[in-house]
Amino acid sequence: MKGRKLLMIPGPIEFTPEVLRAMGMATTSHVAPDFVESFGQALERLREVFFCPHGQPFVIAGSGTLAMDVAAANLVEPGDKALVVNTGLFGDRFAAILERYGAEVTQVRAPAIGDAPELEAVAAALGRGDFKLMTVTHVDTSTAVAADVRSLAALGRETGVLVVVDGVCAVAGAEMRQEEWGIDLALTASQKAIGVPPGLALLVAGPRAMEAFRQRQTPVGNYYADWTNWLPIMEAYEARRPSYFGTPPVNLIWALNVSLGQILAEGMMARFARHRRVSRAVKAAVTALGMEQVPLSAERTAVTLTAPYYPAGVERTVLGAIKDAGVVLAGGLHPAIRERYFRIGHMGAVSASDVLATVGAIERGLAWAGYSFEPGVGLAAAQKALGE
Amino acid sequence: MKGRKLLMIPGPIEFTPEVLRAMGMATTSHVAPDFVESFGQALERLREVFFCPHGQPFVIAGSGTLAMDVAAANLVEPGDKALVVNTGLFGDRFAAILERYGAEVTQVRAPAIGDAPELEAVAAALGRGDFKLMTVTHVDTSTAVAADVRSLAALGRETGVLVVVDGVCAVAGAEMRQEEWGIDLALTASQKAIGVPPGLALLVAGPRAMEAFRQRQTPVGNYYADWTNWLPIMEAYEARRPSYFGTPPVNLIWALNVSLGQILAEGMMARFARHRRVSRAVKAAVTALGMEQVPLSAERTAVTLTAPYYPAGVERTVLGAIKDAGVVLAGGLHPAIRERYFRIGHMGAVSASDVLATVGAIERGLAWAGYSFEPGVGLAAAQKALGE
Repeated sequence: MKGRKLLMIPGPIEFTPEVLRAMGMATTSHVAPDFVESFGQALERLREVFFCPHGQPFVIAGSGTLAMDVAAANLVEPGDKALVVNTGLFGDRFAAILERYGAEVTQVRAPAIGDAPELEAVAAALGRGDFKLMTVTHVDTSTAVAADVRSLAALGRETGVLVVVDGVCAVAGAEMRQEEWGIDLALTASQKAIGVPPGLALLVAGPRAMEAFRQRQTPVGNYYADWTNWLPIMEAYEARRPSYFGTPPVNLIWALNVSLGQILAEGMMARFARHRRVSRAVKAAVTALGMEQVPLSAERTAVTLTAPYYPAGVERTVLGAIKDAGVVLAGGLHPAIRERYFRIGHMGAVSASDVLATVGAIERGLAWAGYSFEPGVGLAAAQKALGE
Repeated sequence: MKGRKLLMIPGPIEFTPEVLRAMGMATTSHVAPDFVESFGQALERLREVFFCPHGQPFVIAGSGTLAMDVAAANLVEPGDKALVVNTGLFGDRFAAILERYGAEVTQVRAPAIGDAPELEAVAAALGRGDFKLMTVTHVDTSTAVAADVRSLAALGRETGVLVVVDGVCAVAGAEMRQEEWGIDLALTASQKAIGVPPGLALLVAGPRAMEAFRQRQTPVGNYYADWTNWLPIMEAYEARRPSYFGTPPVNLIWALNVSLGQILAEGMMARFARHRRVSRAVKAAVTALGMEQVPLSAERTAVTLTAPYYPAGVERTVLGAIKDAGVVLAGGLHPAIRERYFRIGHMGAVSASDVLATVGAIERGLAWAGYSFEPGVGLAAAQKALGE
């Protein structure tokens, strides 16, 4: 019996053997020619994965929250007005970060947990204020709600605001075409659908975002996040010249380039389709097992994770039983409903076999908890959806 | 013939096989019980390695510059006065970071590159201003100058300022006893003598530093660096409770705990002695080969790296020949003398064999460059020093 559990949380995810091999390689110098080549290639590949041919990529050691911090610190000046489209905990966080750099933040909140604000409400709010930027959380990891990024970005562009997308639980899993959709800055973290262990903040800034940065009247309030420090470094590595500001996280960047290569080899459209298929299968199983989900409509549900409420009579302890059955899932994160739901991550290299293993473990956990259902009903629903 | 070169730069360094294995392990959940245990143990071990039993450790995804940024952002409020003891490039950087958060910075500069400010000059400067804190770069990676941290910290404590030590190229290699020496905050990065690939900012803050943070009248200017966010997380992991602010860099933290275990198993005093012995050997070889060093006195020279000037008639291209001979060294970093010197890192797991391989490669490189010397003279000097 293998001791290893399948990790199906919304990040960190299961990484490919090739990515883990790159992580464990003897570390090279950060100015070694082969590392410079790898870093430069990773920057070019990020543009492709973000669908942003004219964007400026940034790869910086840190968490996804650093990526949000970098976006806010470089784009916001004290007194700027910012609109946050809030679909969960990470909207609250973006608001807090923007305020830290002096923004006056207006939030358009979802009418209920699991919902997303109506486009009309966002349009009305944009019409009322003189906003410099708006932020949208593509997939809120706390609620599994997916925002309609394309329509929201279009609204933002009509009004002339900078459109910033927190794509932490989305990029390389859920479809996002940064340039075509008019997104000025998109960001993510390595440990989600990008498929690299945690430790990298990743951003691609479009020309309007870079121009807003260049037009600043005040210095960036955060030294480590300041593009003034990082832009020459990113430009140098992409031109295959070594350069130094802070020592780059060498192993993580080697691993990033391996993963981006695998992502592009699969093809972005095939990858998005696989994520949709896997997501449909997990959600079909959850429904067949009689569980409701946090997102209130199928239309606004993420393809990268599923957030089911525990069935009546079943408590959080079922996660331990599911783990004993071989699969690690995550508890709830949104404070208001934390004890009432759990989260299944399914992104990156996730396969049909992973889905079946996960649904099987959930069934065994639910049986352990005394929940009554027809054994195999979740698996059958998943299998059917995988074949569609 | 092995393709792999020996990496003897001042970070990233050669890491142990056990550390690299931890880097390449399948990533666990950041709230998995075994990871929580490993993270908690790493925090405890940091206190031992920093000799700071009453300190609060912080482990955050980022580079060494982030560690400096965290120190400045949390300790400085606008208008505070800060004194920077400058021994090279990283003193300049600390001054820039402190200013970013509103500090009025006074620098006490070394009289010349390769020198350190006299204690009297620092004492005089401290006497002239009402400083909240002073910073000291223990080892400036750009010049290989080691500051007299112990005496400087004593001076600072007499004056009542907070003493902040940038130990990036020193901690776990050069002796530093944070609590006993009166250092209020010490910081480093993972890829130096701590022996973990780059990507972790590491700090230990003593009680006076934490108290200064608690007494702040203004919010921390940098969201990602803000201890308000990180303190509860560090306390939770050390109490062996999972917690979440940003996803921790799981693989790097597993690797950190492995390396800290190896460091403590060697014993701190034995480790410092090994670093001194290795350093004496490299410096004896450099001298025997007729090369001057950037530090102007042996007393003020780092034990973690050596910075020789190229001999007359030998240019930077010799580094390529030394690499062809099997060892990767680093070029100069200080802008004023960048083309005139190079740097040899010798910290962490560095062994007597590494020293001989390095000196041997330098001899072959110098011979390739047409420099005239008695072959083996460097090796003999190193071997003699290793035996002392």
